[in-house]
Amino acid sequence: MPPEPFFAGPGIDRADALRNRPEQVAALLAKPEARALVWNSGVPALDSTGGLLWTKAAGDEPLFLGLDNQQPRFASLPPTAAGAEARAILAQLNLTDAPLFAAALSLSSWHLRHGFCAVCGSPSAIFRGGWARRCDACNAEHYPRVDPVVIMLATFEDRLLLGRQPQYPPGRYSALAGFVEPGETIEAAVARELNEEAGINVSHVRYIASQPWPFPSSLMIGCTAVATGDALIIDHDELDDARWFTHDQVITALAGGPAAPFLPPPPFAIARTLLDGWIADA
Amino acid sequence: MPPEPFFAGPGIDRADALRNRPEQVAALLAKPEARALVWNSGVPALDSTGGLLWTKAAGDEPLFLGLDNQQPRFASLPPTAAGAEARAILAQLNLTDAPLFAAALSLSSWHLRHGFCAVCGSPSAIFRGGWARRCDACNAEHYPRVDPVVIMLATFEDRLLLGRQPQYPPGRYSALAGFVEPGETIEAAVARELNEEAGINVSHVRYIASQPWPFPSSLMIGCTAVATGDALIIDHDELDDARWFTHDQVITALAGGPAAPFLPPPPFAIARTLLDGWIADA
Repeated sequence: MPPEPFFAGPGIDRADALRNRPEQVAALLAKPEARALVWNSGVPALDSTGGLLWTKAAGDEPLFLGLDNQQPRFASLPPTAAGAEARAILAQLNLTDAPLFAAALSLSSWHLRHGFCAVCGSPSAIFRGGWARRCDACNAEHYPRVDPVVIMLATFEDRLLLGRQPQYPPGRYSALAGFVEPGETIEAAVARELNEEAGINVSHVRYIASQPWPFPSSLMIGCTAVATGDALIIDHDELDDARWFTHDQVITALAGGPAAPFLPPPPFAIARTLLDGWIADA
Repeated sequence: MPPEPFFAGPGIDRADALRNRPEQVAALLAKPEARALVWNSGVPALDSTGGLLWTKAAGDEPLFLGLDNQQPRFASLPPTAAGAEARAILAQLNLTDAPLFAAALSLSSWHLRHGFCAVCGSPSAIFRGGWARRCDACNAEHYPRVDPVVIMLATFEDRLLLGRQPQYPPGRYSALAGFVEPGETIEAAVARELNEEAGINVSHVRYIASQPWPFPSSLMIGCTAVATGDALIIDHDELDDARWFTHDQVITALAGGPAAPFLPPPPFAIARTLLDGWIADA
């Protein structure tokens, strides 16, 4: 079985067919059982169990998130955007509500940065139950972004390559990653990023698992690849460092404690899922 | 070995590290060997061998596509956007130039529809060698979109599910597909789309291959999944029809001719790669 990353799972019924029926969405919003997401500094607020916190809908929430066992779920736009510190809350978030947390956060972040039509510069307005914006001036429609990112473990014999981004906490090493560009397959993006950031060439790119990452709206596509050599040329514009770690070093790091050769990525990151999977398979 | 879709392969060296060095990009553009893409009705023009057609750079092309054996490759923005008929040219395009064709077409299409800042509505300007836009009014940066789309074959015993979109040519059946939404894994998007469009539930989603699709800028993520039953509830807002085809019917369809039970997707579509792979594996 492939590993199951955090943020995986179906979440609630998105009820896509209703989004194009504004009168039905309005009727759902007017129901006494309709609930609205509570925001806290631009991110969904959590209750003491790590679940999403809800309140009775006021009736003016423009984002229709879906149906949770027939109970309509809505959100307003938060008054402020989430800051970089927002991801610390993931350590409290529970698995069941994680997909809906990610959807609500990405969707609201997109609206906050897309109030104007990119085609003509006029103000745009929310439609399709919050899952699109339309420009009345030029009739352009705009849809929320989902930005595919490849994140990968390159291996060479019994070692794998991890790197340090400048903003990481001290000691952290994790999988290298980068945005998929127009005109690329997933496999080509993995090969290009590893070559750009670490100077290695790879073959045998293999998809492992995926994960939404709502900061603001990435789709992390986790892969492995086999390097043709271990000589590194590190791009210091992107990385503080990159190095090869042995299987034993990775096991020791995942176990934690003072002997750990590096601080691994946290359990809610797909990089950790990839590391756990590599150890389980090796 | 996984199947190799059209548009796969590395294309040319994108030389990402140079994009942040405008003086170096300008020096490349001024070289006598710098070449500029020729546009034809909004799409890259092809020569008689199906390769991209190039001309000597004029010196004002804002899109730096990369280095082809050290020869700098640039593009201007085409005077018009590509229409829906543009994809017919894919039948002539050769495999080697396909990734660069896709990159140039997606990138230029994005610029044509993103002349204004979505954050504040002011005009934005090209920077990073054509791979981003910046707003001088509010300092927002905008990057080209790549929209992940899942496209999948659901199987049930020895049959697989194909559907007809309203705009297909007569007789065509192909894989079902839909955009990955914020907050979803690839696997969750596959399951949701199959449920929405065909009313089936699936498990065992498996990634097969990916393909850029530059109309305007999708990343097609090809998967298979196993249905838990064969009863269909077709969403006629999305599909004209959907039905199960046996292994033998698919083989007959791929062979073509008057006995073919349906017209399969063309060779340059990843749906065809998925069908070919299913037949080869079965």
